[in-house]
Amino acid sequence: MINHKTILTHFPRMPPNLPAYLLLALVAASAGAGARRPPLPAANSTASGDPVYLWPLPKSVSSGSQTLTVDPDLALDPQGPGGGSAAVAEAFERYRKLVFAPWEHHARKEDGGYDIAKLTVVVASANETLELGVDESYTIYVAATGGANSIVGGATIEANTIYGASRGLETFSQLCIFNYDTKNVEVRHAPWHIQDEPRFSFRGLLLDTSRHYIPVDVIKQVIDSMSFAKLVPSYPNLWKGSYSKWERYTVEDAHDIVNYAKKRGINVMAEIDVPGHAESWGNGYPKLWPSPTCTEPLDVSSNFTFEVISGILSGCWNVTPHVRQWLDERNMTTKDAYKYFVLKAQELAIQLNWIPVNWEETFNSFKENLNPLTVVHNWLGPGVCPKVVAKGFRCIMSNQGVWYLDHLDVPWEDFYTSEPLAGISNKDQQKLVLGGEVCMWGETADTSDVQQTIWPRAAAAAERMWSQLEAISAQDLETTVLSRLHYFRCLLNHRGIAAAPVTNYYARKPPIGPGSCFVQ
Amino acid sequence: MINHKTILTHFPRMPPNLPAYLLLALVAASAGAGARRPPLPAANSTASGDPVYLWPLPKSVSSGSQTLTVDPDLALDPQGPGGGSAAVAEAFERYRKLVFAPWEHHARKEDGGYDIAKLTVVVASANETLELGVDESYTIYVAATGGANSIVGGATIEANTIYGASRGLETFSQLCIFNYDTKNVEVRHAPWHIQDEPRFSFRGLLLDTSRHYIPVDVIKQVIDSMSFAKLVPSYPNLWKGSYSKWERYTVEDAHDIVNYAKKRGINVMAEIDVPGHAESWGNGYPKLWPSPTCTEPLDVSSNFTFEVISGILSGCWNVTPHVRQWLDERNMTTKDAYKYFVLKAQELAIQLNWIPVNWEETFNSFKENLNPLTVVHNWLGPGVCPKVVAKGFRCIMSNQGVWYLDHLDVPWEDFYTSEPLAGISNKDQQKLVLGGEVCMWGETADTSDVQQTIWPRAAAAAERMWSQLEAISAQDLETTVLSRLHYFRCLLNHRGIAAAPVTNYYARKPPIGPGSCFVQ
Repeated sequence: MINHKTILTHFPRMPPNLPAYLLLALVAASAGAGARRPPLPAANSTASGDPVYLWPLPKSVSSGSQTLTVDPDLALDPQGPGGGSAAVAEAFERYRKLVFAPWEHHARKEDGGYDIAKLTVVVASANETLELGVDESYTIYVAATGGANSIVGGATIEANTIYGASRGLETFSQLCIFNYDTKNVEVRHAPWHIQDEPRFSFRGLLLDTSRHYIPVDVIKQVIDSMSFAKLVPSYPNLWKGSYSKWERYTVEDAHDIVNYAKKRGINVMAEIDVPGHAESWGNGYPKLWPSPTCTEPLDVSSNFTFEVISGILSGCWNVTPHVRQWLDERNMTTKDAYKYFVLKAQELAIQLNWIPVNWEETFNSFKENLNPLTVVHNWLGPGVCPKVVAKGFRCIMSNQGVWYLDHLDVPWEDFYTSEPLAGISNKDQQKLVLGGEVCMWGETADTSDVQQTIWPRAAAAAERMWSQLEAISAQDLETTVLSRLHYFRCLLNHRGIAAAPVTNYYARKPPIGPGSCFVQ
Repeated sequence: MINHKTILTHFPRMPPNLPAYLLLALVAASAGAGARRPPLPAANSTASGDPVYLWPLPKSVSSGSQTLTVDPDLALDPQGPGGGSAAVAEAFERYRKLVFAPWEHHARKEDGGYDIAKLTVVVASANETLELGVDESYTIYVAATGGANSIVGGATIEANTIYGASRGLETFSQLCIFNYDTKNVEVRHAPWHIQDEPRFSFRGLLLDTSRHYIPVDVIKQVIDSMSFAKLVPSYPNLWKGSYSKWERYTVEDAHDIVNYAKKRGINVMAEIDVPGHAESWGNGYPKLWPSPTCTEPLDVSSNFTFEVISGILSGCWNVTPHVRQWLDERNMTTKDAYKYFVLKAQELAIQLNWIPVNWEETFNSFKENLNPLTVVHNWLGPGVCPKVVAKGFRCIMSNQGVWYLDHLDVPWEDFYTSEPLAGISNKDQQKLVLGGEVCMWGETADTSDVQQTIWPRAAAAAERMWSQLEAISAQDLETTVLSRLHYFRCLLNHRGIAAAPVTNYYARKPPIGPGSCFVQ
């Protein structure tokens, strides 16, 4: 059985001169240079026994017992070849506002002396290329200047790339907490020494903009929220077909979204949803459809189809005379035609220096014909990536039973405990697992509810993909994870993101009664 | 029976030297000077038969068939004694961004010639006092300069106050639509001549911040969204008791919210929720509670209660020895004590030049003792305001059967058709109805779902309270109102507000399937 989600085909890394509906590019991050430094002990609690309220949990953390005040006029001290980048300055200012703007109507410290008045950001490379495997590692030191436990005084983020610096800024921002008694923003449990890098380079969230139009500003809100959890997005059908004359994406919108995301270290990847489920395409190019009454899937018999997406499936094809004739002339079944479509699309993609990412049906149906560069995107069930990597292909996990956000009955615990490397013991094969993608299919999600359907469950998957396996493998999630996830959900709320209560049995349900965000 | 929502008591118009937890002030607007101008015909459709996509519907509208382009660098041309106000400049810039920022990544018109390059805002008075009955009337003229149908060329808003100008800017912003084909923001159906003023001066939305903490930035989002529908908010318990050390409102937060709202022509009014449902107060001042195990309602036997709220109900009082003793010494029943509490609070309020607004129980229980300045706030059911105004008191309608947003089974049509003047034919008595307030009680609403519980139903009540009775009295809501409400909901979504689908049977439910915002 092939259902409506069957034939999504990603085309990462679009050359700049291509039409923007063939959008974008690959996702970020890698296990990079951070690994060269001596590892600190992994820790999810502070010296005083409080949980480390950081999400996702960094690779290694050490903390102390000092409380340091942070200057609302915190200055950026850029260092290193990449430190002076406009992207670093913009990211710094964005995080400074996230930390301080909610409190700026409070009085300053009377004596004016803050423990942390500047943040040094050292970026080793000026290379701003954002691609799969970019180095996202960073190190944070926060200590009273000259303090006995300080490694270096003040606050410092060190990274190899501007994207690592951006991840470090997010973590630093989560260390900065407003104290309602002193009315200061403080870093508690200092000195901090945090060394961090992601376990997987591909940590995606699919945002479906084809079932409901999501306004550009709302997409930007989602991108913001994803950067808080160190996730990266992809979009199926960011396309102008849409539902009304006021609900379209322009080419300029697409570029704007990509630029917005890149500044947050996020590489937007447009899914080209072919040959199935491309109905809206026909609104712009009716020739793509087999016939006016048979608007899905794309017409495999037309060269124009390939001209546009640079299109095979059953369904309409058998009952549409000219397509049927085209198949008969070639002695092809609809399954043959499906294969023909996918392989032709792969060929075009690779010629254009893209990496084809195909949903797993292609692997299930004709793995022997797939180009070895193919990335197989799992969705149908568990146990697919082990088969994929055993054949030498790369794999992305999106097992629908645990990582589909539109499955409202899947609790955060299932998102949290789903391990992309499950069933893969060979180290070389493990490296072929790029990561995973939680999927926000949009049949019942629009601007009104998309954020609370995504959050907080996507955060659970985000920590699975970012944090070290040992640190997140405790059996007792109630005591080791829940309070931190509550805290992260409240942080999202505080930043204006409509993340839903953590402990609801069904996703995106209202709180069951009055109470604190930190326990609901 | 007295339930938990019984004894909310509002204290509008707080002097500046009072503690800020006794927050604020009255709500805006009036039937003002606009009435002096010759009325235009009321119209909810354009010359071409399209609906007038403005919400709430202005008092009188005339339109034409021209399409005018609007310059993304639209300039403000301030005129009149109040036109130069910083508030006007700020409001103009806010609306300019709302209209143009979503499209600023699109190319400008190649020839550079826009039909509307400046917006003249004429404000007759420099008085910026915001109080109940402030003049919110405005007139808009939009026409091609020198056009045959133009009254004055270009775009002009005339108002008596900066608050009227602010309402006019909202309406003007709703006229400005992005054209996906030309990539310009346009005013269609010009020339426009709109003359507008609200039917009721008090058009409230109660936001309950006592059951769940709503972060300040989220409150500001709600204030923004209310200004789009020309509503004004009130808050019960904007107070620091709250649920955790990270979920409090500071005095500075309260001032910040008030300033933010005032810039939007909105007067924040804090409800002092006494003597019932004041549990969180005791977190700051435990002496207010009858005993540590009996934390509600406030202790009528303590002068300290009155010192703080400047504080009668049953329940704990009968079973708490020192309160029981205090009542016995005075030969008072708990009902007597309730009356004592309310009347003493009224007396204090009036001494301080406030107007007491009391939920209707006070009127139902001892109307003969209420100060004649009392405003009675209906909530228990229909038919209360006619009794209230017959006794000479002023009235605000919040009939829970139709205007409680937390009642999820009340459809938008019921919100829309509930008429505050129902059952009141005497003109003088009609004037005693200040308006109404839709109530967003927060038992099951927090940051994750408050906006989609409020919207779009609050907009239905907003039009009821703003627009002229004749224009909104059509029986066939499907044809006369629904498409406009869809449009307004999509406008809210476009502005980042998570307004829920209009046609769901229950409020704040997800869309039932894929589709356009304009039909869901």
